[in-house]
Amino acid sequence: MRLVVIGGLAAGMSAAARARRVDPSLEIIVLEKGAHVSWAACGLPFYLSGRVKSLEELILHKPDYFERQRNIRVRTNAQVTAIEPARRQVVLRSGERLAYDRLVIATGARPSKRIPGSELPHVFTLHTLEDARRMREYIEQRPVRKAAVIGAGYIGLEVADALAEGGIQVTLFEAAPGVLGRNDPRLTRRVVEHLARLGVQVQLNTRIETLAPDSPAELVVLATGVEPNVELAAEAGIELGRTGAIRVNDRMETNLAGVFAAGDCIETLHLVTGGPIYLPLGTTANKTGRVAGANAAGARERFPGVVGTTIVSLRGLTIGVTGLSLAQARQAGFDAVSVHIEAQDRSPYLGSRPTEVELVADRRTGGLLGGAVTGEQGVAGRINVIAAALTAAMPLEQFAQLDLAYTPPLAPVWDPLLVAAHELKKALL
Amino acid sequence: MRLVVIGGLAAGMSAAARARRVDPSLEIIVLEKGAHVSWAACGLPFYLSGRVKSLEELILHKPDYFERQRNIRVRTNAQVTAIEPARRQVVLRSGERLAYDRLVIATGARPSKRIPGSELPHVFTLHTLEDARRMREYIEQRPVRKAAVIGAGYIGLEVADALAEGGIQVTLFEAAPGVLGRNDPRLTRRVVEHLARLGVQVQLNTRIETLAPDSPAELVVLATGVEPNVELAAEAGIELGRTGAIRVNDRMETNLAGVFAAGDCIETLHLVTGGPIYLPLGTTANKTGRVAGANAAGARERFPGVVGTTIVSLRGLTIGVTGLSLAQARQAGFDAVSVHIEAQDRSPYLGSRPTEVELVADRRTGGLLGGAVTGEQGVAGRINVIAAALTAAMPLEQFAQLDLAYTPPLAPVWDPLLVAAHELKKALL
Repeated sequence: MRLVVIGGLAAGMSAAARARRVDPSLEIIVLEKGAHVSWAACGLPFYLSGRVKSLEELILHKPDYFERQRNIRVRTNAQVTAIEPARRQVVLRSGERLAYDRLVIATGARPSKRIPGSELPHVFTLHTLEDARRMREYIEQRPVRKAAVIGAGYIGLEVADALAEGGIQVTLFEAAPGVLGRNDPRLTRRVVEHLARLGVQVQLNTRIETLAPDSPAELVVLATGVEPNVELAAEAGIELGRTGAIRVNDRMETNLAGVFAAGDCIETLHLVTGGPIYLPLGTTANKTGRVAGANAAGARERFPGVVGTTIVSLRGLTIGVTGLSLAQARQAGFDAVSVHIEAQDRSPYLGSRPTEVELVADRRTGGLLGGAVTGEQGVAGRINVIAAALTAAMPLEQFAQLDLAYTPPLAPVWDPLLVAAHELKKALL
Repeated sequence: MRLVVIGGLAAGMSAAARARRVDPSLEIIVLEKGAHVSWAACGLPFYLSGRVKSLEELILHKPDYFERQRNIRVRTNAQVTAIEPARRQVVLRSGERLAYDRLVIATGARPSKRIPGSELPHVFTLHTLEDARRMREYIEQRPVRKAAVIGAGYIGLEVADALAEGGIQVTLFEAAPGVLGRNDPRLTRRVVEHLARLGVQVQLNTRIETLAPDSPAELVVLATGVEPNVELAAEAGIELGRTGAIRVNDRMETNLAGVFAAGDCIETLHLVTGGPIYLPLGTTANKTGRVAGANAAGARERFPGVVGTTIVSLRGLTIGVTGLSLAQARQAGFDAVSVHIEAQDRSPYLGSRPTEVELVADRRTGGLLGGAVTGEQGVAGRINVIAAALTAAMPLEQFAQLDLAYTPPLAPVWDPLLVAAHELKKALL
């Protein structure tokens, strides 16, 4: 039995590693089109800011680790150009054909480059190790005083912060009225004000139509989202979902027998809306890769879906969101209501700082639909509690009574989550 | 209608404030035996360490705030010596009688002083503002080179750390084999090793039988737990529970009509065991006080109980526990199993540090029973996620798939909670 995995990053290597654990006798071959496997894409902004000194630090394992320690064959610079399900073969650019019994497609995504001028030499994306290397070299080799970042998703925010940390004047352009794709005016205001203090001017509602060679920005970073790499799958007859990404069931099976998909090329189930969502994130790539690998090797595991937890850590402000914003909830058809509170993140006599919590609920059922937390400290933990509550469909009454940790240096006696929950109870009366 | 509240700290003032919100016309009188109300008992160790400069910082509100802003009459130095439920009166030490229509008993707790010698001049407890003032003065006025702290509960740990921070050689004695009353050998080892690095030697399994005036320690701090102040209630015919604290229902009603109790003098329901527990903590005092006050003023609110979340923040190590330890679970009759993992608390290329997670589950149902987290960062958030899962009786399968926040500076792609949950799934197979 041979398992072929297309793609050697988070999802692909998770699939290969998990398949190996499930079945020690399986032949496993990973085909990676690039030069490296198993590197940490989420670390790229921190290389740009200099907090990560060398790109080598972002490479978690080299191919020989997988060969020697895991008995997984890894072929880099091996681009697959076709999948032929009838023959159970993949075709490589070289013309070589490789048979498979089970296939995991983990082809990932690519940065969206729909703006004319995207190929100009001063325009970058931050998607690969090579992108990061080129961008840092570019900055080091010439005086870059002004930069434009296009797109205020989490990568755009991280890149803007990283460039500003290096002393560059940054303007961040966003076509939508809000950041992080949430259409949340209050969250947006907090982030915009904070970025201004870090040296990043944000221009919302500003769609960049075209990029010119003589723009005032010496450096432009495109961060307008990613598009799933689905062409290989689609041409092989694999179904795509409503979002345009590969459709899989909760076992990560595509519509073709023996063919699984995972990572940034698939859509997943949103546990709050019950509908499909395309939300390519490192955690989901690892989790879906793991499940795809397990099932490809003969186990029976499932990935239930996501609640959409995303977090961005800027200098001095962390922003966490999960579930639906008020606007997203209304758009999804919920009779949604939200509350917003500002509270102290620990006891006032130990230097507390303000943190903000927004909670969104369904007026009809009283159930939680989502939340957002911003602050300097404790944001990840608080957003995770909301994520757990969403996953459990916890009644608001129970959420408002949670026995949360209290100690003066880390949390106030009334945790901001509980303060927000009490306000939400009032709003639902 | 007059509401009388006995006790002006966390529970009592929460009750009074909440009652005022529920019923603006109620007459509310708080009787506090001490000189101050509404001060933050949990801040005392941080005054001892010097992180809180003045005890004034720990006083959240003075009596005139409640009088003027909340229309709550506050009488300090007003000790109640008897409750006469037949007449609906309380009797003060002065002989004065005060009638009530509704009564909230928030008499709190007192430090246990069962060891002979507890009244020696170099022996202290840390329970009141006056205790803290006296202890800091004592340390400032003479060379204290060696101190003994008796009891390794959270107050003992915090006091030992605070004294060591001031350069004092501290020995911490604990009669039980483990810290924090959990009987958890691994957690205990981690805490003991860490305290040694902070200058605190821990002697477990060491019961102090008596305190002598000529001991090598120039300062002794008793931190052997607290006992609920129930005499006033018991003499009035109010029922106590199995734990020795006042028994209340989920509306904070005692067995006497119109008489409520809240805070450190009551026992609460443990949501994991389903039995009563005496766990006096600031959060529970505030929550039960709030519910007692609401119901005393005519609302209908309830307090469901606790899962036992406790957290201690030492220099360089935070320890969080919730639910039951393995030993506690077995003692409570569960067929319990536990796993323990060490994982990185964020991405390795951003200076991650080890964090440890223990999870305890019921072999029969597969349900979570408890957990412990230790580490430098992110402990409060992670213990809160376990607390939320315990409250929701979340299946382990769901817990292991939680969509937790991932960003390299704050959390690794596989959160330590998920790593532990996957190990626990294996242990339950």
